[in-house]
Amino acid sequence: MPASPIRKLTPFADQAKRDGKKVYHLNIGQPDIETPAGMLDAIKNIDFKVWSYTPSEGTLAYRTKLTEYYNKLAYNINPDEILVTVGGSEAITIAMQACINEGDEIIIPEPFYANYNGFACMSNVVVKPILSVIENGFALPPISEFEKLINRKTKAIIICNPNNPTGYLYSKQELEALRELCLKYNLFLFSDEAYREFCYDGQAFISPMHLKGLDEHVVVLDTVSKRYSACGARLGCLITKNKDVIAAGLKFAQARLSPGMVEQIAATAAIDTPKSYFEKVNKEYTLRRDALVSRLNKMQGVFCPNPGGAFYVVAKLPIDNADKFCQWMLEEFDYNNSTVMMAPATGFYSTKDAGKNEVRLAYVLNKEELEAAMTCLEQALKVYPGRV
Amino acid sequence: MPASPIRKLTPFADQAKRDGKKVYHLNIGQPDIETPAGMLDAIKNIDFKVWSYTPSEGTLAYRTKLTEYYNKLAYNINPDEILVTVGGSEAITIAMQACINEGDEIIIPEPFYANYNGFACMSNVVVKPILSVIENGFALPPISEFEKLINRKTKAIIICNPNNPTGYLYSKQELEALRELCLKYNLFLFSDEAYREFCYDGQAFISPMHLKGLDEHVVVLDTVSKRYSACGARLGCLITKNKDVIAAGLKFAQARLSPGMVEQIAATAAIDTPKSYFEKVNKEYTLRRDALVSRLNKMQGVFCPNPGGAFYVVAKLPIDNADKFCQWMLEEFDYNNSTVMMAPATGFYSTKDAGKNEVRLAYVLNKEELEAAMTCLEQALKVYPGRV
Repeated sequence: MPASPIRKLTPFADQAKRDGKKVYHLNIGQPDIETPAGMLDAIKNIDFKVWSYTPSEGTLAYRTKLTEYYNKLAYNINPDEILVTVGGSEAITIAMQACINEGDEIIIPEPFYANYNGFACMSNVVVKPILSVIENGFALPPISEFEKLINRKTKAIIICNPNNPTGYLYSKQELEALRELCLKYNLFLFSDEAYREFCYDGQAFISPMHLKGLDEHVVVLDTVSKRYSACGARLGCLITKNKDVIAAGLKFAQARLSPGMVEQIAATAAIDTPKSYFEKVNKEYTLRRDALVSRLNKMQGVFCPNPGGAFYVVAKLPIDNADKFCQWMLEEFDYNNSTVMMAPATGFYSTKDAGKNEVRLAYVLNKEELEAAMTCLEQALKVYPGRV
Repeated sequence: MPASPIRKLTPFADQAKRDGKKVYHLNIGQPDIETPAGMLDAIKNIDFKVWSYTPSEGTLAYRTKLTEYYNKLAYNINPDEILVTVGGSEAITIAMQACINEGDEIIIPEPFYANYNGFACMSNVVVKPILSVIENGFALPPISEFEKLINRKTKAIIICNPNNPTGYLYSKQELEALRELCLKYNLFLFSDEAYREFCYDGQAFISPMHLKGLDEHVVVLDTVSKRYSACGARLGCLITKNKDVIAAGLKFAQARLSPGMVEQIAATAAIDTPKSYFEKVNKEYTLRRDALVSRLNKMQGVFCPNPGGAFYVVAKLPIDNADKFCQWMLEEFDYNNSTVMMAPATGFYSTKDAGKNEVRLAYVLNKEELEAAMTCLEQALKVYPGRV
């Protein structure tokens, strides 16, 4: 075998399959919600003869239609301020590559979306985590804690809002505090808004795009994956009013030539998805969240904050070790021949041993299945040998 | 504006549009050939309700169907030896990231596909070019030249076969020589086979997959873009019998979650494209190549080898500077209100000033248009102020 050592990268969560018993998959963010019919119809109605490249930045038709969507949210952007990407993943990678030099640092409140580590690793960007805590529902850590981490190498802060994995929805006050910080230290503010459409209890979604004086600092990272339950479309975008970032990002986009053509056609149609679709989806997720959070907090020794958005919760369990517990659930435990697959929260922390008694649950199953999964979890906690 | 310097990356060829006169676009590899009907029908016939992620390595259904295609070519592979990628671009990036450590080196015969530089830059891999020359049609440089470049940091060689930009088709002897070299120095051999289906004059395509004892060394990089004229599908794959490379590559694939779902459905159907489709396409390209090469060599001071594959030629012109000439063609020249857009070959060389009197022409237009474009080029060369 060639002598080349193979580079190491943090492994992704194991998507093990356990045959023989029913597994409630609360571990991944693949919703069961149907993709809007208009989006799927657009795929079925394609009428081109040559499946060709599109411009690297995305088609003008799609970027123009996207501004309709964003400007209804008062982002006040034009098509030149959008770079269409291959999934939200590429938006994150391109933002890092375009804005942060190798060896420079990005601050991320933890727990955070585990793949940020992978993208940072690929971009040779150093992740500096800053701890948010379950006791206050994973609110933004105090600004003074950010300031302790900031140094000459600090180039950006990334927030995911509403948050994956915690579901936390940042408040206007928290975003204003970040605004001050980014202006004071001249930092980029990356805003991962994959879950923007999923805000509950009548709470408004606030984007850094709504804040004054931050045009050159804000880079929005977005995707159609969750908004339209179209994870397999692999279509996202990066939005910024900073022309240098668009120009630098475009060079990385040009290197991979083009985002998908069929996806852009479908996503253009998706912008006309009726409001009723989102209302129905949000009602469904609210029901599920309420059921999940209520059941969790009724279990002895369990604490789960009630998050304002996304479709995840992080819960604290009376266990010794979340990795062990989740594995035990899959391999050793069953209740009526069923079990629950969850994501150990340790995977979302960069700090060693953080989140050892926490798990992330995605409420991507219907209420009946969630209730059954919670009954199963409740029984498991009663008999788990590592209960504390 | 944030203090962060924006990273620099080699810019892609300018895709300028020149209004007011007809431009024959011979500069890019976007074929005018129709995508197979069966592939487009598969898109129109999708019947899923949730556009979901697929496994990061690609669906088993698609990888299984792909083995049918490759095993007809005697690659003797199974689905586990395939990693489905987002375009051929990602296959190249993942191969570099999985096999070559940061700061280590890859040898590439030049002129080469310009984006190799971009992928290497993103992967912090150092490109060592090795000159192939127009006089022998851009045949493989002598092995002794490779050996001069090999040192402790050398980890891989990449060939593109048939070649972009030269159209050169490597012979069995050349591949055998590379085999010896890779075994002797324990190097990976990346084989970019995007143009595999485009071999002319009855010449057989030989892959490093056909060579003995090289299983752990060969990484094939492929795409559906050219094979099915489906550049906008953004679907490729990486093939290797080296299990460590598959395992490392999978981690990078997992970081971006999933290749496109609709594309995999379409590409699965594409495997059943009738042989007659490829025969027709190859007949068409042969006609075009013959017309193009013949016209070029009839022009005074022009030399163009007759390549065995792909749909490009590199021609030597009696000019001072290809960048200047191509720009002049667009901005200053017209013949009957038309002009020709070509890619200066300088963009395909890593060595400074190499290819200064060469251009790449893609024969992606029909024969009539190619003839008209050649008449236009002939006239241009007569009046170009920088003619030498």
